[in-house]
Amino acid sequence: MWDDWIAEASAAREAAGLTRRLRPRGPDDGVVDLAGNDYLGLSAHPDVRRAAAKAAMLWGGGAGASRLVTGTLTLHGDLEDELADWLGQPGALTFSTGYHANLSIVGALADRTAHVVSDAHIHASLIDAVRLSRAQLTVVPHNDVDAVRAALAARPGVRTLVLAESVYSVLGDEAPLTDLAEACAEHGALLVVDEAHGVGVHGPGLVHRRGLAGRPDVLVTATLSKSLGSQGGAVLGPRAVLDHLVNTARPFIFDTGLAPASAAAALAAARISRARPDLSDTIRARVTGLAQTLGVPAPAGAVLSVPMPSPEAAVAAQANLLAEGVRVGCFRPPSVPDGVSRLRVTAGAGVTDEDWDRAVKAIDVIVGDVR
Amino acid sequence: MWDDWIAEASAAREAAGLTRRLRPRGPDDGVVDLAGNDYLGLSAHPDVRRAAAKAAMLWGGGAGASRLVTGTLTLHGDLEDELADWLGQPGALTFSTGYHANLSIVGALADRTAHVVSDAHIHASLIDAVRLSRAQLTVVPHNDVDAVRAALAARPGVRTLVLAESVYSVLGDEAPLTDLAEACAEHGALLVVDEAHGVGVHGPGLVHRRGLAGRPDVLVTATLSKSLGSQGGAVLGPRAVLDHLVNTARPFIFDTGLAPASAAAALAAARISRARPDLSDTIRARVTGLAQTLGVPAPAGAVLSVPMPSPEAAVAAQANLLAEGVRVGCFRPPSVPDGVSRLRVTAGAGVTDEDWDRAVKAIDVIVGDVR
Repeated sequence: MWDDWIAEASAAREAAGLTRRLRPRGPDDGVVDLAGNDYLGLSAHPDVRRAAAKAAMLWGGGAGASRLVTGTLTLHGDLEDELADWLGQPGALTFSTGYHANLSIVGALADRTAHVVSDAHIHASLIDAVRLSRAQLTVVPHNDVDAVRAALAARPGVRTLVLAESVYSVLGDEAPLTDLAEACAEHGALLVVDEAHGVGVHGPGLVHRRGLAGRPDVLVTATLSKSLGSQGGAVLGPRAVLDHLVNTARPFIFDTGLAPASAAAALAAARISRARPDLSDTIRARVTGLAQTLGVPAPAGAVLSVPMPSPEAAVAAQANLLAEGVRVGCFRPPSVPDGVSRLRVTAGAGVTDEDWDRAVKAIDVIVGDVR
Repeated sequence: MWDDWIAEASAAREAAGLTRRLRPRGPDDGVVDLAGNDYLGLSAHPDVRRAAAKAAMLWGGGAGASRLVTGTLTLHGDLEDELADWLGQPGALTFSTGYHANLSIVGALADRTAHVVSDAHIHASLIDAVRLSRAQLTVVPHNDVDAVRAALAARPGVRTLVLAESVYSVLGDEAPLTDLAEACAEHGALLVVDEAHGVGVHGPGLVHRRGLAGRPDVLVTATLSKSLGSQGGAVLGPRAVLDHLVNTARPFIFDTGLAPASAAAALAAARISRARPDLSDTIRARVTGLAQTLGVPAPAGAVLSVPMPSPEAAVAAQANLLAEGVRVGCFRPPSVPDGVSRLRVTAGAGVTDEDWDRAVKAIDVIVGDVR
């Protein structure tokens, strides 16, 4: 029964050209990497490597237990203080992945009696979070503030969370954060903003840049595995909310604390990111230039999405670029909100000007041939 | 609205004596730690520390992307090969936490048309996994194989997963794995065994010890953050199942790959664990001796649960032991399946004989006063 079911699912994927295979890479394969999310190039920064290595030598390989038992290290506190200070928030709580930060904030605040208003393009982790919470759900069209207002007005007096990302992963566009925060304030709702693609790329993030940091009704989640070059996630907001998470968030309570090396790497990367605003300037210049070259709109984040005619065409262009020594990503169903396959080019600050220029030329030729 | 709701939840916890607070610890506070899950003491092993540090220097702070994009490292492959070989399985797939391994195996295999038969004492991550999957759920009484058989017989022809842990976290007892596997085989069901507290404590785990390793209808999940002293999780089983996870498991697809330092630490710990079967012998001797001293049944795992009259009594005994230089854990609702608060004493192999003997004496005196 199970064997047949698994075999059928595999055959269906194969027939649709959607089979995914893991392609292991070595520590340095000489390829220009424009596929990852290490937006500022900090994972490989000497200070980040050394901080992670030192923490592993000092603290050992793991935190050893749940944060609530004996897995809270003073190192976690240092990281949380740094993140809160940088992002202009009263406090921060770190998790072993960004996925868990999202599962936790929604799961701890929303229950059957709550209402969640979610943008149509939010990340899988937030979708799963809502499903787990069993809250009443309204999905609104992407970046449609009027629809958010209507959803809030439809259930007055119900505790409501509004979910958005500051920069959306696939299309790379920005949320109307100021308008969303205003709508939430009018209706007593909490706005939860996932800054996975905003922090670092936009310094302390777009919530901060829009003057919304520290507002008690605007909560932030972040990841430590993109601009901060490590692993893990964080929730930032009022202490009372964080205390509530410590006491009730299942993926916090029932998981081992973030590994010391990862916490130290993220802390070092946050410090570099604060000291080097030029890194995000480099990203803006590169992503804008590449968008112009390819004749597609410039995104709000570091990732340029290039729509392709089919999943197969996207995969072929990706392979041709790899043959030229340039690695780009590829979004195919079900990882896209609209069924359109895309190349995904990260305009990170971690590659040299020379490599970047070479990569842009190769992309221009190969993508031009296909589109 | 939100402020009131959060304040009320906080006040209710406070009134029930159930407020949890984080207590950060330094890298070495001189306390004998019997609270964590670093069962073999490998997190602090020099080879594990060095392996993590070397990996951070070679690979950087993070994997940089989802495993499907460019976040699969040859290091992940080395770890997966080692785990599969050790546990006697065709293959392994690693995740950024054990929580995600459980969310993934259930979420990728079970859907609305599937049936999940779950032991009443399974871990929060498996409970969340079933909730996310939307499968039809039958919860059976703890370790009741007849009830499992009845649940399987009640829905013939329906794809069914049976969920168990080899060693249960809170009571520390063992699942009747051989009987469960037989019941599953009779009905064409898949048995999923969480070996979080089995691997390492029982060498390659109880699935292996019971001769069930490598059976295509017995899948294993494991954590890298307990006996392996690191962070992360793994699913072990047939290649077709792992390929299915790579293609469909949301917490695998939409999460950054496990950090290099954590992967390397777990790999080093697995090698030490294989080479040092005496470490698990030490655990058996210690946990059996302590159980005898306190007059409670010896558990199947490394953790001795000592029932206490109230949450407050458990917390007080824990504080008194800490004053004596011994850190133990404390289970209170909602982290217990039956509402009974317990002290939680890890009989790990990572403390010296001298420290262990001193700790046992202190526990005997302080727990004897209270119970």
